Parts: sequence; structure tokens; C-alpha cells
Amino acid sequence: MNWDHIYAQAKQWVQEAGNKIRLSFDEILTIQSKTNPNDLVTNIDKDIEQFFIRKIREVYPEHKIMGEEGFGDKLVSLDGIVWMIDPIDGTMNFIHQQRNFAISLGVYENGVGKIGLIYDVVHDELYHASCGNGAFINEKPIPALKETTVKESIIALNATWVMENHRIDHKLMIPLVKDARGTRSYGSAALEMVFVATGRVDAYLSMRLSPWDFAAGTIIVEELGGLVTNLRGEKLNFLTQNSLFVAKPGLHQTIMKDYLKDGKW
Amino acid sequence: MNWDHIYAQAKQWVQEAGNKIRLSFDEILTIQSKTNPNDLVTNIDKDIEQFFIRKIREVYPEHKIMGEEGFGDKLVSLDGIVWMIDPIDGTMNFIHQQRNFAISLGVYENGVGKIGLIYDVVHDELYHASCGNGAFINEKPIPALKETTVKESIIALNATWVMENHRIDHKLMIPLVKDARGTRSYGSAALEMVFVATGRVDAYLSMRLSPWDFAAGTIIVEELGGLVTNLRGEKLNFLTQNSLFVAKPGLHQTIMKDYLKDGKW
Repeated sequence: MNWDHIYAQAKQWVQEAGNKIRLSFDEILTIQSKTNPNDLVTNIDKDIEQFFIRKIREVYPEHKIMGEEGFGDKLVSLDGIVWMIDPIDGTMNFIHQQRNFAISLGVYENGVGKIGLIYDVVHDELYHASCGNGAFINEKPIPALKETTVKESIIALNATWVMENHRIDHKLMIPLVKDARGTRSYGSAALEMVFVATGRVDAYLSMRLSPWDFAAGTIIVEELGGLVTNLRGEKLNFLTQNSLFVAKPGLHQTIMKDYLKDGKW
Repeated sequence: MNWDHIYAQAKQWVQEAGNKIRLSFDEILTIQSKTNPNDLVTNIDKDIEQFFIRKIREVYPEHKIMGEEGFGDKLVSLDGIVWMIDPIDGTMNFIHQQRNFAISLGVYENGVGKIGLIYDVVHDELYHASCGNGAFINEKPIPALKETTVKESIIALNATWVMENHRIDHKLMIPLVKDARGTRSYGSAALEMVFVATGRVDAYLSMRLSPWDFAAGTIIVEELGGLVTNLRGEKLNFLTQNSLFVAKPGLHQTIMKDYLKDGKW
């Protein structure tokens, strides 16, 4: 398998898809709800996913594809090469803000992350990594992540998770928010993962995400020495929904132990 | 008073200050704490405030200046012309992210907002308004704000305010977060105010801010038909700290009535 070629090809397709999205800003969007009134999808999400699928099928007909909008394959295993695509991660931001969304594309071989690309279209920032070869913003290498403490950290998490909710005991989260230097919430898991990768935030927690949301980010963060697990500290399962806990080295272990009770909740 | 001249001059100074900040990215920052360990200030905040004060004193020696870092005047009234300056709004973002901060500069005459400028330095976006003449991003006019509903709105607020805190009964905030489409938190009041002005978020709530944090944003948001009050629905006091509630027309009244009990809390 020529991974350099797949990497170059994936980058080119992501840039082309970014151009299409930029051109769409002058069009009127068709917006629909999916699982609930706030789970939104637009015609652009669908068009971009179909664009990727056409390209991949053409060049790599033997590869499998998992996409947010459901135009890919229904997978029951991660055997072989699997592309995991979120055509627009942060669709609500795309609709309301025309910014703060990203294309997220991860390529896995037998469940192992090989190539991750997250493209912040509006700011023209492509975050990318191929396993073992470092991570970059556009052509600039991203330095390895350094350890930090809770009291000097900025944590990305949604306000919902410190209110009573049916995913996690919010009493676990409140002390963490109180002890941290600050919290932020940006509304795009892919971007929040690269914000950990670049040290703009120190950790990111979310309660329920799908493989295409974190497939690319996992490769980029791990390439820089960050840790990616679910909120119980377990390895992610790329065939189902997962909670997500991404953090700098050291900080991940501290939060796991001192706030998330080593997963015993 | 030649307001066109003051407006042009203020824009020029803000751009110059932005250049200085961009150049500082390669320097090592001196970081200090102010009122608490997370209330940070750097040498750049101080340098930029002093830069503005020098410029204003030189051209408008009779004007008064209120600045976050304390190099301006100690004001007991808003009589005359007062410049309200936050050299770096979002200092924590400036330190951790080298983005998502802004220069905020408001000019008031006898307590009435005349000119507001908020400069997102890294994205080179200058949001500005002069009272009665419209608001702009760089040279592009910003359209007037339209009404919206809670269930279709994105609300900017910090996770802290839905946890028990000593500023507001968090039980007032929780139903609002549950009913809204989503929440975000960006860590810069000035930017969060222009995000309301540009419709990227629909409302912004904060518990304790100083006049320099909201002086410019108030002028920009009001110019577009948005409403700016404290969390009890009262006019802001530009000589003290205030809570802040900024929202689109219609939405402000609805949240005030249905969630903030018309200020009776």
C-alpha cells in the first residue's frame, strides 16, 4: 500500500472539497433535522460526502467508507482500509456562523490510524498527520505536546455536561471546571481535537460522538503525544458511538484519576 | 467635535496596535496575575494600553481615558469625551492560543456611545461602528439583526454560570441552555459581542465585566438593532462592573421575561 500516495491524494480532495464549501456560501442552504431538531444537515454536507465517495471509489475501489451522512458502507468490521469522513463537522456552526466548522477525514488500516486530515475551511488551515511522520498545520510542523496541570489548563467542554444530564454524573465534571483555569466551547469536535493538538486548549471532553467525528483528530493528537480515550479511560471503538476524552500527556492521567475516578462511575 | 476625524484616527491606531501585537508573537511574554491566579496580564497588554494613551494624549489632550491596565485616568464621571480601552480582551486566549482575542476601543461623549472598534488581530477583522452610521466588518456593512426564537438560537455563555455560583441563581440559566439550540464559549467578551452583532451567536450572557470590556461592543450591537443591558434588563453603568446580557431584538425580551424573570431575582 502506497501510503504517501493516499496521503497526497486525500489532501488534494480535502482542498477541493473546501473550495466547493467556500463557493456554497453564496447559495441558499437546504437545512433538515436528523435525530432531533438541533441535529442538522444541509445539502452541502451531503454533496461533500458524495464528492469524497466518488473520488475514493474511483481510485481505491477496494477501500471501505464510513460517512456521517450515510452514503458510505454499513460496516461491521474495521478489516482492510476504511475512510471515515465527516464532510462538515460542526454543521450548526456552518449554518449559523459560516465558520468554525471543518472537514474531517481519517484513514484506518485494520483499525489502526494511518492518516488524519482536519481542514478548517474558512481559515484555510489544514491540520494533518500520517502515523509516525509528525503532524502539521499546512506545511508547518506542530510541536509535541507538553505536560500541564489542571490549574493551568483550558478545557473545552459544553455547558450541558455540568448540568444534570443522562450521560454522565455532572457532579464529576463540576470540580474539574472549578479547578481549571478556564473553559471554552466551540461546537466542532474535529476542531476541538486539533485545538488540543496545537495546545490552544489542554483537554476536550464530550459525551457522545461518532467515529467520523474523532477518526482524524485521534491520529493527529496521538502523533503529538496526546492521549485519546473515552471518558472511562478506555480505547475508542470505531464501530460505535463513544464518549471522548482528549488531553495532553500527564493531564489526561490526572483528570482520569482525580476527577473521573479512573472510569469507576 | 470632528467625529469623522476621531473615527479615522482611532481605526489607524487600532491597526498600528494590531501590528505591534502580531510582532510580539515571537517574543517571550512576561505573564502576571492580577485579582486572582486566572486573571492574567502580560507585558503586551500594558505596552498596548500605553501606546493608545500616548497617541490620545498627543492629539486630544482634553479627552479622558479609562483603560483595563490602569494607565488611564481615575474617572468619577462620564462628562466630556472618554476613551474606554481594553488593549487585549481575552488575555487568557492571547497567552494560550495566540488567537481569539481582540483590541476593544469605545469612545463616549457625556456617557453616550459615539465610536466602537473591536479588532480581531489574528484574523485581521476590524468590527466598527459610529453611532447612526451603520456597523462594518472591515469595509463590509453588517446587516441589521433579525428577531429569532430561543429554540433556534445559539447562546454564548461560560459553563460556570450553569453551575452553582455566587453571581446568579444557576437554576435560572439551566432551562435557557436546555431550550436553546446550542451554547458556545469563546473567552473574549468583545468578540462574543461582535459575534452577536454578526449573528454568529444570538445572545451572550456574562456575570461580571468592566466598562472597557463592553464599551465598544455596546455601540456596535446597538447600531444593528441588538439590545444590551445587564442581566436584570437595566441600562449598563459605564463607571462600574456590570453583568451583561446582549441579544438580538425579540430574543432579548423573551429571555428577559421567560428565563430571567424580568430581573426579579
